[in-house]
Amino acid sequence: MLTTNPFDDDHLHEECGIFGASGSEGAAALVALGLHALQHRGQEAAGITSFDGHDFHTHRAMGHVAGNFDRDDIIRALAGEVACGHVRYSTTGETALRNVQPLYAELQSGGFAIAHNGNISNAMRLRRELVRRGSIFQSTSDTETIIHLVATSQYRTLLDKFIDALKQIEGAYSLIVMTPEGMIACRDPLGIRPLVMGRLGDAVIFASETVALDVVGAEFERSVEPGELVIVQNGQVRSIRPFAKLAPRPCIFEWVYFSRPDSIVDDHSIYSVRKEIGAQLAIESPVEADLVIPVPDSGVPAAIGYAQQSGIPFELGIIRSHYVGRTFIQPGDKVRHLGVKLKHNANRALIQGKKVVLIDDSIVRGTTSLKIVQMMREAGAAEVHMRIASPPTRHSCFYGVDTPERAKLLAAKHDLGGMTDFIHADSLAFVSIDGLYKALGESHRADIRPKYCDACFTGDYPTTLTDHDESSAVDQFAMLAERVN
Amino acid sequence: MLTTNPFDDDHLHEECGIFGASGSEGAAALVALGLHALQHRGQEAAGITSFDGHDFHTHRAMGHVAGNFDRDDIIRALAGEVACGHVRYSTTGETALRNVQPLYAELQSGGFAIAHNGNISNAMRLRRELVRRGSIFQSTSDTETIIHLVATSQYRTLLDKFIDALKQIEGAYSLIVMTPEGMIACRDPLGIRPLVMGRLGDAVIFASETVALDVVGAEFERSVEPGELVIVQNGQVRSIRPFAKLAPRPCIFEWVYFSRPDSIVDDHSIYSVRKEIGAQLAIESPVEADLVIPVPDSGVPAAIGYAQQSGIPFELGIIRSHYVGRTFIQPGDKVRHLGVKLKHNANRALIQGKKVVLIDDSIVRGTTSLKIVQMMREAGAAEVHMRIASPPTRHSCFYGVDTPERAKLLAAKHDLGGMTDFIHADSLAFVSIDGLYKALGESHRADIRPKYCDACFTGDYPTTLTDHDESSAVDQFAMLAERVN
Amino acid sequence: MLTTNPFDDDHLHEECGIFGASGSEGAAALVALGLHALQHRGQEAAGITSFDGHDFHTHRAMGHVAGNFDRDDIIRALAGEVACGHVRYSTTGETALRNVQPLYAELQSGGFAIAHNGNISNAMRLRRELVRRGSIFQSTSDTETIIHLVATSQYRTLLDKFIDALKQIEGAYSLIVMTPEGMIACRDPLGIRPLVMGRLGDAVIFASETVALDVVGAEFERSVEPGELVIVQNGQVRSIRPFAKLAPRPCIFEWVYFSRPDSIVDDHSIYSVRKEIGAQLAIESPVEADLVIPVPDSGVPAAIGYAQQSGIPFELGIIRSHYVGRTFIQPGDKVRHLGVKLKHNANRALIQGKKVVLIDDSIVRGTTSLKIVQMMREAGAAEVHMRIASPPTRHSCFYGVDTPERAKLLAAKHDLGGMTDFIHADSLAFVSIDGLYKALGESHRADIRPKYCDACFTGDYPTTLTDHDESSAVDQFAMLAERVN
Amino acid sequence: MLTTNPFDDDHLHEECGIFGASGSEGAAALVALGLHALQHRGQEAAGITSFDGHDFHTHRAMGHVAGNFDRDDIIRALAGEVACGHVRYSTTGETALRNVQPLYAELQSGGFAIAHNGNISNAMRLRRELVRRGSIFQSTSDTETIIHLVATSQYRTLLDKFIDALKQIEGAYSLIVMTPEGMIACRDPLGIRPLVMGRLGDAVIFASETVALDVVGAEFERSVEPGELVIVQNGQVRSIRPFAKLAPRPCIFEWVYFSRPDSIVDDHSIYSVRKEIGAQLAIESPVEADLVIPVPDSGVPAAIGYAQQSGIPFELGIIRSHYVGRTFIQPGDKVRHLGVKLKHNANRALIQGKKVVLIDDSIVRGTTSLKIVQMMREAGAAEVHMRIASPPTRHSCFYGVDTPERAKLLAAKHDLGGMTDFIHADSLAFVSIDGLYKALGESHRADIRPKYCDACFTGDYPTTLTDHDESSAVDQFAMLAERVN
Repeated sequence: MLTTNPFDDDHLHEECGIFGASGSEGAAALVALGLHALQHRGQEAAGITSFDGHDFHTHRAMGHVAGNFDRDDIIRALAGEVACGHVRYSTTGETALRNVQPLYAELQSGGFAIAHNGNISNAMRLRRELVRRGSIFQSTSDTETIIHLVATSQYRTLLDKFIDALKQIEGAYSLIVMTPEGMIACRDPLGIRPLVMGRLGDAVIFASETVALDVVGAEFERSVEPGELVIVQNGQVRSIRPFAKLAPRPCIFEWVYFSRPDSIVDDHSIYSVRKEIGAQLAIESPVEADLVIPVPDSGVPAAIGYAQQSGIPFELGIIRSHYVGRTFIQPGDKVRHLGVKLKHNANRALIQGKKVVLIDDSIVRGTTSLKIVQMMREAGAAEVHMRIASPPTRHSCFYGVDTPERAKLLAAKHDLGGMTDFIHADSLAFVSIDGLYKALGESHRADIRPKYCDACFTGDYPTTLTDHDESSAVDQFAMLAERVN
Repeated sequence: MLTTNPFDDDHLHEECGIFGASGSEGAAALVALGLHALQHRGQEAAGITSFDGHDFHTHRAMGHVAGNFDRDDIIRALAGEVACGHVRYSTTGETALRNVQPLYAELQSGGFAIAHNGNISNAMRLRRELVRRGSIFQSTSDTETIIHLVATSQYRTLLDKFIDALKQIEGAYSLIVMTPEGMIACRDPLGIRPLVMGRLGDAVIFASETVALDVVGAEFERSVEPGELVIVQNGQVRSIRPFAKLAPRPCIFEWVYFSRPDSIVDDHSIYSVRKEIGAQLAIESPVEADLVIPVPDSGVPAAIGYAQQSGIPFELGIIRSHYVGRTFIQPGDKVRHLGVKLKHNANRALIQGKKVVLIDDSIVRGTTSLKIVQMMREAGAAEVHMRIASPPTRHSCFYGVDTPERAKLLAAKHDLGGMTDFIHADSLAFVSIDGLYKALGESHRADIRPKYCDACFTGDYPTTLTDHDESSAVDQFAMLAERVN
Repeated sequence: MLTTNPFDDDHLHEECGIFGASGSEGAAALVALGLHALQHRGQEAAGITSFDGHDFHTHRAMGHVAGNFDRDDIIRALAGEVACGHVRYSTTGETALRNVQPLYAELQSGGFAIAHNGNISNAMRLRRELVRRGSIFQSTSDTETIIHLVATSQYRTLLDKFIDALKQIEGAYSLIVMTPEGMIACRDPLGIRPLVMGRLGDAVIFASETVALDVVGAEFERSVEPGELVIVQNGQVRSIRPFAKLAPRPCIFEWVYFSRPDSIVDDHSIYSVRKEIGAQLAIESPVEADLVIPVPDSGVPAAIGYAQQSGIPFELGIIRSHYVGRTFIQPGDKVRHLGVKLKHNANRALIQGKKVVLIDDSIVRGTTSLKIVQMMREAGAAEVHMRIASPPTRHSCFYGVDTPERAKLLAAKHDLGGMTDFIHADSLAFVSIDGLYKALGESHRADIRPKYCDACFTGDYPTTLTDHDESSAVDQFAMLAERVN
Repeated sequence: MLTTNPFDDDHLHEECGIFGASGSEGAAALVALGLHALQHRGQEAAGITSFDGHDFHTHRAMGHVAGNFDRDDIIRALAGEVACGHVRYSTTGETALRNVQPLYAELQSGGFAIAHNGNISNAMRLRRELVRRGSIFQSTSDTETIIHLVATSQYRTLLDKFIDALKQIEGAYSLIVMTPEGMIACRDPLGIRPLVMGRLGDAVIFASETVALDVVGAEFERSVEPGELVIVQNGQVRSIRPFAKLAPRPCIFEWVYFSRPDSIVDDHSIYSVRKEIGAQLAIESPVEADLVIPVPDSGVPAAIGYAQQSGIPFELGIIRSHYVGRTFIQPGDKVRHLGVKLKHNANRALIQGKKVVLIDDSIVRGTTSLKIVQMMREAGAAEVHMRIASPPTRHSCFYGVDTPERAKLLAAKHDLGGMTDFIHADSLAFVSIDGLYKALGESHRADIRPKYCDACFTGDYPTTLTDHDESSAVDQFAMLAERVN
């Protein structure tokens, strides 16, 4: 279900990618390229804001970067040497253009643009208080809360106002902010969402992933550190750490699925970690089989690792179409499992009579896994074993990832036997949480202060969930969105 | 395998795919699904014609099947139990909607719809004669010639008129024809382009490739034979062979690149043949290296074959984006090789310091190969060896494949040393023509009556080229297209 | 005069306007302007074909001239010093783009473009015979018959072929034809539809009405005569009359409604004739009243004539909106007569307590008249008298005018009393047929050879109606259109 | 009256029309109809907000009401028994969708929607102060100032907050406001812009003009009085007058040009006043001539008045096309005065050799007048006299009317002789300011407290112009718009 169409896909989805460039002629063109490389982090909408030393220019659009931001006239209109942008994935009801980032406001100090990857977990509580005092919200986005906190802050300088705002918010945030004085990139004290910094000649670049640096030809410099504000002003870069220091907890799912395999996140190559997870899986859950088959495309690196570790040959047993659309009419019941067939087709000549090990990165609802197992059987597979390159996904994420409600998570409803039955596999195994940490170079997951946020697997949330304590933050914003549309 | 953006890609391109369904409720929906599975054979335009027992219905559109034929209203309007369709790839100037197939005409006998994969190599000569006698052409397509030959034939029955027309045309044609009396599928006497037949319950299905049968859930029955007409009328299937029997010459490039890896063409699995070509390549042109890296996606099966034969590990050293658009502005010269970077990015962490063997299916102009070799070097590769899973492409195709003029073919301009220099590789090798035949189960290419059309490699064209004798058929039609637009 | 929304309007509608320019730089721009001035003759689609001395260029579009042909890129692409164009009004089902004129074909002699105002009344019979002999029709338009007759004519020169074709067709036709050798304008032997000729410097201009000459700044020269072919070749103009001479019968409805009031048709100013019809109406059917009120806009000239003759003041008692769209939701039954109110609103302050005479040009179904009478009463009119500036419309037109079937014509169903009751007027009167001829300078309508085609009023058709003898030509083509769409 | 293409038209333009309906099922449908009838007050954009007792719903669109708000799905989505809407005319740069009204905000008290006709002349000063205190503006519209004043007001009830806001603003405003508690309509203390109130069954309707009441079938009740707030809550209507009473100064240009001729504004029929201005003009500036010719359509009522007073016949000497688009290519200099010819054409047969009096409502730049005089001469007029049904327009308007800068006003640059020369007329006359007041039933214009705002003629502005004192309000907002786009 796949990739062309994120909405009928059985994956968790990163909700955003951000990119900024400061000090480069044609900065908006760099941002467009960078966002294009980050498109997998959000396919629903994109936006770019530039500053030409005098005026801010913004263009936002529903849809992909290509098709919207590869037009000369649009890029030329985004004049200036400083620009930032955002790609967004979001659930229905919150998709209006006014929610597309970067958000922009005219403050007393001048223009203020902000692009945000993450989720503020006390946004509703803050919003109610701001409205009570006369602030008028334009969007249903949690990010707008930050702007109003800055606008109404009693501090004198813009930087102090901004830090004042950050100190009031909870949750996950990697931010790129543009003001007439310069660009600020920052990462929340736990560093939940990634953010890296690079150089392209004299220009300073910020991006959610290193792959975006590669595409524009920039050199990777370092990750922005958890709790750090990097300020670029008149070509000078300086760093501020206004928060009490905490042990970082970057999101472990970036290595499991979110980031592109050619990215390096917090010093670990995504591709290598995924191969290593596959190898761990082969060690923990071996199986006697003829072929190792990846579920394309996200299962490929782990399948290579599994094949190399086990010695079973890696083969393309499932072929994926690049031309998937939304829906096709199904004439009667003659055509079954159509969605999955349009995207994936069994390589029948290869599979006939073989014992196969399927490798996928994760299971969310299990619906796609079921269809793929059935597809293997219909193509004549003798046995179908499924191996998953992450632990069972049992908990919702409140830090900027689109998770189905818990009741829909396969692993929240069934034990391993139940899941195996549900997907009709001959066997099913997940990598262990310790196996996952091993693939990242740890000996095991520490019970106290584990090195990563793994709440979706363990339920161990690293922050308080203010809005969520009341009910669900997601629900409140969804209601809000519905009421004002 | 398939590319998001065929236009900046260095490949020969199949110009068409065809699909027909007779005797199934909602036939047009099956055709839409089938065409979707054949989308890699033509991304520029698509069309479907149905017959409801009384009236013919046609919808044609520029663009992909998804987005045009996945709409309920369009499919419902294409009523009836018989339908056929066409996907088309074509060069600029011939892309007007009136050239999109199926072509349709009202003859005295009633409606006549035709979908064609291939190219008629004496179409210009026939057209001039028909116009002289008062025929008026609607399109610049060679296919329309067939319709006018049928309309003006002196024979009495429609079938005789159709055979009369076929006997006057030369070249490559797999056809699906619909008349009020039934559906006719046929393949030229040499069987240059593929065509298969399947069953879905009582319905009879024709398709360019078996993958389209898989997607609709149909069972593969057999290939339509070279020179055979299969007639489906009132649920009955019969076969006619009106031509003198010739030794078949199916296009060998279907196994090299055109067909999807999960298709079986004339009894050979595409995936297996490609893997075997890779293995032959490893035997013929071994190299000492650390990694075997496919150029995604079309190089993957041969790379697996090369890796398994050579024992060098298969790794994803190039990551391909699924979100490629047409063009992006490039700000100054800071961003080099942008086209290829948007689509392909080096897996830097993997490649650094390694000797790599790149596997690609073919080289046409060589421009993409050059960029990919440079990308490997910039990512730190110690050595870059290129291995190509087909012989050098030196000649134009006149049988329905979009080939650049000879002067642009890298192998027509350079010897192996020149080509190696051009792409900046440490070494370059192509599989031999005999190696290619070996992968197809032959001991070698027979000088007399070789089993396949391999004219693009050998210049040995299996038919006379009537229009081409005068000048180039392609040029004449291009001029025609220009004059009437 | 013209209506924003012809479809909820109670008028007969001219089906076409044509315009040609030969010998002028940028001829297509002149044609676009000319067609714009003829837009009232056809609002559904427009097309222009140009010839640059080497190639023909065509652009056709559904919709108005403005919005389609006021774009630089489109006009520039229509290169050359010779061009012709067409605006079209047509009924549903025949509106596909391939029916939009000029029609174009590649004949042996080269390109052949044709624009037609009128209707060929034996087109179906000719078409059947042509198809039997192998001709393939692209459209459901009667005009295409002419092209196939030319293509298959046994005569040697193109001009002879064209005359051969004309001699086989019956009905009404004003034509502009373009070939590589020059432009031919012609009018059927009865001159049913209008066609005029003018000069703009060295260029020769043809147009359906003089208003199109005015707009491009051309000088009116003369009408093309019934049965005349005017040939423009290398700047030379010559005239041929290949038909036996007949007494002309131009369509009298051009003066009643079709042509613009600022046009002069066959030596009579439209505006003056309409005013004179109003005066005749005042003489024939006087009424004691306070105000003369035109139904805007087409009733205005006759109302001025009525007011001047009767001495009753002319006043704007109905205000017409320029912003009418198709339909608006009507919430419950609170809002009555909405269609007419959106377009027309009573000038309430003026009408209150007054006796009013409404002047309209014609009544077709009577539905609009009823609504307007009611609107006057609701606005407080004391008496409402309706006077119509044409005789009762009782018969269908088969010469290129869109007429409802006879059963829907108010005057075919009711006598004067019945019509008066139907529209709820205090009195109703139509100008007499002799009064109409008087307004055109005749003493009365001659029973033998009347000077005009007035078949819609009298049923006296000036030609045989071949297709119509079989059933209705309109119906046959409508069925044809339905079958092939 | 109304023009198809306002941009090549030489008129001042009203910038807005507003409409509200409270207590009617399907209120949004009524608003769509009402806005359609007010389309002449603003053609650039339209918006409707409804309230269904629980949620607010808004739809805004660039373009006309028809084409945007005549779609079932859109109207159905605007659920509820209370709705208001707005049509907008505006200059380039301020046309973004976020400026289209009704503006909407979520205040602590709930939703707040506002539609505004007029212009706040101290909006810039207020905005700067609000931004200083932390308010964030979404638009460049002066109207948004009101919302922020309400949001940040220290008063307790929403009504008190709203009055608090109104007391801080200066200039012209007719407002319709919607809150969860009900609808408020109000008019500034001078009543500069119009606003009327009507009844449709139990529903209360507010509209800029009575013509909008006519179209929905509502009965006119009374004008909202200058300085009055009318509050509709649970079906009850009450009235508040929170301002010190001032002598009203309604805009006199409503009678000259802005309002539709079938509207009644502050007890005077627009059509009758215009006819009376024409009669005054005939008395003040008679001329010996053969024909009185209106410049269509806005000059028609005054021309009828002039003709009736003078006894010279009223004739349609200029025919106006209903199909005017933006621009057409002009091939070389052969086609002169094209813009005006596309829209207006001389009725040549009528004018030839005649002395004509042209009647127009006003002259702004004079460019159209020049072209029309020339058109008359080219059509053969013996003499061309121009009479204008308003005094010379010499001053800019700051109350919601789009006026060119003073330097472009013909009457600000030239005396009568200069103007006569500029337009090439044989004579030119304007009605006197006293003549204009006479047509409205006054004996003359009172020097002290004249009854109308006539600042565009006299420069006598009835309010202070706070922003304008600093520089031009228009310019500041234009700069603002440019900076944030």
